[in-house]
Amino acid sequence: MTAQPHNLLPDPLHTARLLAAEFAETAVERDERGGTPKAQRDALRHSGLLALSIPTQYGGLGASWSETLSVVREFAKVDSSIAHVFGFHHLMLATVRLFSRPEQWQPWFEQTARKNWFWGNALNPLDTRTVVRKLGGWREFSGKKSFCSGASDSEMLIASAVDESAGGKLLIAAIPSGRSGITLHNDWHNMGQRQTDSGSASFERVRVEESELLLDPGPLSTPFACLRPLIAQLTFTHMFLGIAEGAFEEARQYTLTETRPWFKSGTEDIRKDPYILSHYGDFWVALEGVRLLVERAAAGLDRAWAKGPELSAEERGELATAIATAKVAASRQGLELCSKLFEVTGARSTHASLRLDRHWRNLRTQTLHDPLDYKLQELGDWALNQTLPIPTFYS
Amino acid sequence: MTAQPHNLLPDPLHTARLLAAEFAETAVERDERGGTPKAQRDALRHSGLLALSIPTQYGGLGASWSETLSVVREFAKVDSSIAHVFGFHHLMLATVRLFSRPEQWQPWFEQTARKNWFWGNALNPLDTRTVVRKLGGWREFSGKKSFCSGASDSEMLIASAVDESAGGKLLIAAIPSGRSGITLHNDWHNMGQRQTDSGSASFERVRVEESELLLDPGPLSTPFACLRPLIAQLTFTHMFLGIAEGAFEEARQYTLTETRPWFKSGTEDIRKDPYILSHYGDFWVALEGVRLLVERAAAGLDRAWAKGPELSAEERGELATAIATAKVAASRQGLELCSKLFEVTGARSTHASLRLDRHWRNLRTQTLHDPLDYKLQELGDWALNQTLPIPTFYS
Amino acid sequence: MTAQPHNLLPDPLHTARLLAAEFAETAVERDERGGTPKAQRDALRHSGLLALSIPTQYGGLGASWSETLSVVREFAKVDSSIAHVFGFHHLMLATVRLFSRPEQWQPWFEQTARKNWFWGNALNPLDTRTVVRKLGGWREFSGKKSFCSGASDSEMLIASAVDESAGGKLLIAAIPSGRSGITLHNDWHNMGQRQTDSGSASFERVRVEESELLLDPGPLSTPFACLRPLIAQLTFTHMFLGIAEGAFEEARQYTLTETRPWFKSGTEDIRKDPYILSHYGDFWVALEGVRLLVERAAAGLDRAWAKGPELSAEERGELATAIATAKVAASRQGLELCSKLFEVTGARSTHASLRLDRHWRNLRTQTLHDPLDYKLQELGDWALNQTLPIPTFYS
Amino acid sequence: MTAQPHNLLPDPLHTARLLAAEFAETAVERDERGGTPKAQRDALRHSGLLALSIPTQYGGLGASWSETLSVVREFAKVDSSIAHVFGFHHLMLATVRLFSRPEQWQPWFEQTARKNWFWGNALNPLDTRTVVRKLGGWREFSGKKSFCSGASDSEMLIASAVDESAGGKLLIAAIPSGRSGITLHNDWHNMGQRQTDSGSASFERVRVEESELLLDPGPLSTPFACLRPLIAQLTFTHMFLGIAEGAFEEARQYTLTETRPWFKSGTEDIRKDPYILSHYGDFWVALEGVRLLVERAAAGLDRAWAKGPELSAEERGELATAIATAKVAASRQGLELCSKLFEVTGARSTHASLRLDRHWRNLRTQTLHDPLDYKLQELGDWALNQTLPIPTFYS
Repeated sequence: MTAQPHNLLPDPLHTARLLAAEFAETAVERDERGGTPKAQRDALRHSGLLALSIPTQYGGLGASWSETLSVVREFAKVDSSIAHVFGFHHLMLATVRLFSRPEQWQPWFEQTARKNWFWGNALNPLDTRTVVRKLGGWREFSGKKSFCSGASDSEMLIASAVDESAGGKLLIAAIPSGRSGITLHNDWHNMGQRQTDSGSASFERVRVEESELLLDPGPLSTPFACLRPLIAQLTFTHMFLGIAEGAFEEARQYTLTETRPWFKSGTEDIRKDPYILSHYGDFWVALEGVRLLVERAAAGLDRAWAKGPELSAEERGELATAIATAKVAASRQGLELCSKLFEVTGARSTHASLRLDRHWRNLRTQTLHDPLDYKLQELGDWALNQTLPIPTFYS
Repeated sequence: MTAQPHNLLPDPLHTARLLAAEFAETAVERDERGGTPKAQRDALRHSGLLALSIPTQYGGLGASWSETLSVVREFAKVDSSIAHVFGFHHLMLATVRLFSRPEQWQPWFEQTARKNWFWGNALNPLDTRTVVRKLGGWREFSGKKSFCSGASDSEMLIASAVDESAGGKLLIAAIPSGRSGITLHNDWHNMGQRQTDSGSASFERVRVEESELLLDPGPLSTPFACLRPLIAQLTFTHMFLGIAEGAFEEARQYTLTETRPWFKSGTEDIRKDPYILSHYGDFWVALEGVRLLVERAAAGLDRAWAKGPELSAEERGELATAIATAKVAASRQGLELCSKLFEVTGARSTHASLRLDRHWRNLRTQTLHDPLDYKLQELGDWALNQTLPIPTFYS
Repeated sequence: MTAQPHNLLPDPLHTARLLAAEFAETAVERDERGGTPKAQRDALRHSGLLALSIPTQYGGLGASWSETLSVVREFAKVDSSIAHVFGFHHLMLATVRLFSRPEQWQPWFEQTARKNWFWGNALNPLDTRTVVRKLGGWREFSGKKSFCSGASDSEMLIASAVDESAGGKLLIAAIPSGRSGITLHNDWHNMGQRQTDSGSASFERVRVEESELLLDPGPLSTPFACLRPLIAQLTFTHMFLGIAEGAFEEARQYTLTETRPWFKSGTEDIRKDPYILSHYGDFWVALEGVRLLVERAAAGLDRAWAKGPELSAEERGELATAIATAKVAASRQGLELCSKLFEVTGARSTHASLRLDRHWRNLRTQTLHDPLDYKLQELGDWALNQTLPIPTFYS
Repeated sequence: MTAQPHNLLPDPLHTARLLAAEFAETAVERDERGGTPKAQRDALRHSGLLALSIPTQYGGLGASWSETLSVVREFAKVDSSIAHVFGFHHLMLATVRLFSRPEQWQPWFEQTARKNWFWGNALNPLDTRTVVRKLGGWREFSGKKSFCSGASDSEMLIASAVDESAGGKLLIAAIPSGRSGITLHNDWHNMGQRQTDSGSASFERVRVEESELLLDPGPLSTPFACLRPLIAQLTFTHMFLGIAEGAFEEARQYTLTETRPWFKSGTEDIRKDPYILSHYGDFWVALEGVRLLVERAAAGLDRAWAKGPELSAEERGELATAIATAKVAASRQGLELCSKLFEVTGARSTHASLRLDRHWRNLRTQTLHDPLDYKLQELGDWALNQTLPIPTFYS
């Protein structure tokens, strides 16, 4: 928690757990179906949790980042698509907070808290197909954009476009999702993260007002503004950990209730099979290590956030390495666990009604956001050369 | 090739490759759909390959086991469900060959070759719910059976039942799939191997003639008869390798044509990215090791098969360890490759239209047939104590 | 730090670092030589650090366990033999504190602090060759004992013997190392931990007074007394981490100053070789995870210790799992790092003058104290069954 | 075997095994001592095995490369230093065979076979400190050279120097080790491969005749000549496998005779401990995979060698990938086994009298000859791009 007057919900994590229990009931079916989890998004709207990271003076719950990300992790245990769009919503709020002037973000915060707006993403700096044109007093965005997670069924969008007249400079704007000229194609149909609506969008001469552009201080302009990609990376990391924890718990329940010891096991009790125990020991060691790395990174983000514009490039860089470390560990250990868990649940646990493969599919999909190899390279540069990562939208 | 007069098809592997190319075109769609691959099964019937392992004097193609399993591997590269039912078909033929009298298996072989019969599986020794009752001159099978791969759309079934009056002895029979009282539930709906029809069957007072029982020499009765489980294990192993090889090749084509180097890569050419190359180097080392282990095991099976009833328990045991070794390596390296490959194809390769996750799902599902941990234990018993594995339906 | 009046040394960790720098100068040569590091042991005596864990009211420095173990870790970075005997010294003090009456341990604490006594180990519960005989008002210990770390050049010993008249009960005593009948054989000559003097001892009718027996509350008698094996395990864990950290730092200095890029590297600067960076990234992720696990466990021990006899079995059990988790991770990641580091230092770094293999030898030796496999089994029992480990001298 | 008239020794592998058994008796002691294994080198001279790879028409045993390398592997099981210098001796013979004219190598072969000459190495293309100067009818080599394995106690040397007047061209010569101006420093003192004498040499105006220069066809001049580095790499690979096999066998004997089951093991018989068996299963799978890769590569070398100057660049390239694959697998699996084996032998197996760490030290040292990372990169270039490795002295 920050020093701001405290939250209105008695306990957001408790609320999140109740919601998660509800989401869990349909998670398997919705993984099969894909598409927009409309009912769950509305439940999030009604829960008040869309205002979780908004300071109380703007009507929000005033949660710290570690509290907000704990809720992401909680959702990811049962439904990593929901965790994704929920986390991205708060990332979009952080984006306006960090890249625009108070006169801009404060009203957006207030309206978001008051009207339970859901924010979606159309900012993909590596997809340069959307360009901007300057007209009289406004700009026009035109082109396509991929990987627009959570754009469908959102009230607000963070969109980016390339200003070719300014040497390819990236312009970012916050605009109503319903603005004329925006088409969301609902064409996300991937092997994992199936209800994140991470499909494509088209912008056809979409008018963007100057007051909607995030120009001051602008993207990645200061060490503090450079927290934005770190919040993105740490959001993923909480999703990865949550997925692994959810997978572990589902495997555990299955082993305890359904799995039968192999006939050579020498025991009638699966709970005593030496190899089953050994695998669970491995899972435990892996999860515990990741949990601590993730929690340390989240605490670091809270501290960095609290410093505000005073945050130094070095402090930001050290946080970046803590987050990258947690991300690498969460990715690897999570993938291992989500694939290996079948060896403690057995052949029958592949039944489609369980969709127990969804943990691996979700994690495998989301861990590809940016390559692990280059995260490791950055960490190597830190470990060997004590060179901190250069801020980009991925570091 | 055995010493028998040679095959009629000019080159079964060539035929298999043509068929595989055809199957590949619909493999993604059929993975989504599940159910019985009727058209493909019929194409197999028409190809003559259902007679592949049948000696020429019974009208078959007289292929050796290593040739037959090469075809399994070839199919597994594009469609491991087809590979599975095709491999099981030949395993069922081996079952009657090894467990019954020539007067029994010879006509079955001839009819299979002549009529292009497809054999399916209803032999699951760990599922003891089907029991047998002795009546006048026949027996009656009643009960349920799970994991009946390839039973749907088959002409013949290998079914097992427990004879409670004989201390739980396992009776195995070869019966027409259409016999009165047999219901195949078409209820296989699992995360992988989705077109193997490995669902459940019910037997309702199914009449089984004495001449249909595989009693002489009977199941696992001699070292030679004990080749049956080894053929099963080696069939799986060829599937595992084929899946990994197919996944590798699909990843490779995708990397070469679709994947873009990361912006930090220092090269515009994905073919030169140092980490992409490193992953492909890892994949190569893994695949090459497995290929040799699998091919050695297959050559060993050919030699053991050629010995016939002269095969000693020790020779059979050494073959068992060679097959177990290949199986462990193929399982582990394949799972690693099928999960890791996404790191060389990238985020866009998770698009559902590719279903690139099917390799992992298929392999993950099939590698659970019997636990890797106990295969390793067996191998450890050999490596440390020079104790050969005791023959069971899994070793 | 506990609530006790604060330490006399301005900063024990600072003192430890000065000593460590001194020890580092001769560590390579002493690794070759083996034997007793007499000068270093005396430097420890003079430093006052032998009183580190002794509460201030008994003349000690009043350090918490996490502070004490930080010093162990600091020594282990440069010399894990010194770390070992230093850690064991404090473990011996914990032993008398936990197993004996205040009238017993308080004078031992005072004398240790006043006279800078060094305590050594002759307690090996799995070596049952030393037996006890009850005579008039005293007992006699006779027999052999292996793995007596730090017994040479010690003032006091913790020794154990089996009371065959009491069903093999383990009796533990604190006795002067110089007592008549004790022979320390100085026969430790192993591949690692070469200056720990972990050789054998003989007891020839060694007289042990009743007041020297640790009977009340006695070994492993209460959850609080059961902290003793946990302190042992956590001492090892700090050694393991310290070894890995020292190895990492030595490798790093070597890479930066000596290693040349491979001719295919595409760079003249080893600091930019993509694979070198990748390995350092791996090392970093591994070390960071272990550091957090170790520090959490140490903080947990501080809390458990502060509870004293109020400590519940459950609290003790949860601490045991935290320590076991840290130990497994430190063992595995450390071994991997100490072997792999040569791939970032290169062929010339195998020169014997560096003895860069000593990190692996030391870690490999010490991680065998008790089997990792059974630690994992315990952790599996916790992860799957929520069964806490049963206290023994190893859990 | 090649088509040449057959060998004189009844069975060189049998001879090698007898010698190996003899070497084994002193291997531990000599690992401690380091220096030149004079008695063993002389035993090799007397055995006739120095003529192993020499065709029979020149008085040799006419062994194929796979036979010669089998002897390397056999020696490596007990003493990888001997294996190294023995393998290098034959590599030096291959060097003159491949790089010089028949009038040159034929007399060298004959004399080697007749006089049991031992050849040593002073060819290190990455060490450019030795330069050549052209005088009247001869050249002069001057400078230093590192890593001169087997140079001490040799009769002949392969030495290289840089011809600065020819743009840094590498000149290679075969010269008597005793020639005036050559000093071998006997300064090899490294953590592994301790009796390989891989120290440094100085050349002080060493006269080299034109007839001693290997200029026609010269180094790496044709695909056939480019087999030289492949023979070097495959020699290492046989050493790596031999080391791992020797370590496995020593561990196995120790487990069976010395290791006691852990008190929680549930068995009194170490041979039945589930985790011990599991580790041995892992070792077995690893060793079997490496064995097949190594044997395939050796058979490939035999075939390539038999082709002689007809060998195409593509055939040579494919052999290079087979050898690189075997080398990567042997390095990794061997290192893992040599470190992990202590978990099946236990704490007491660290006693210095066993020097059981020597397997890891030897393998760790020798696997650094050239970086694994760049071997993997080459293999990735093959696997992804079907680009064969460009021949160098390392590929």
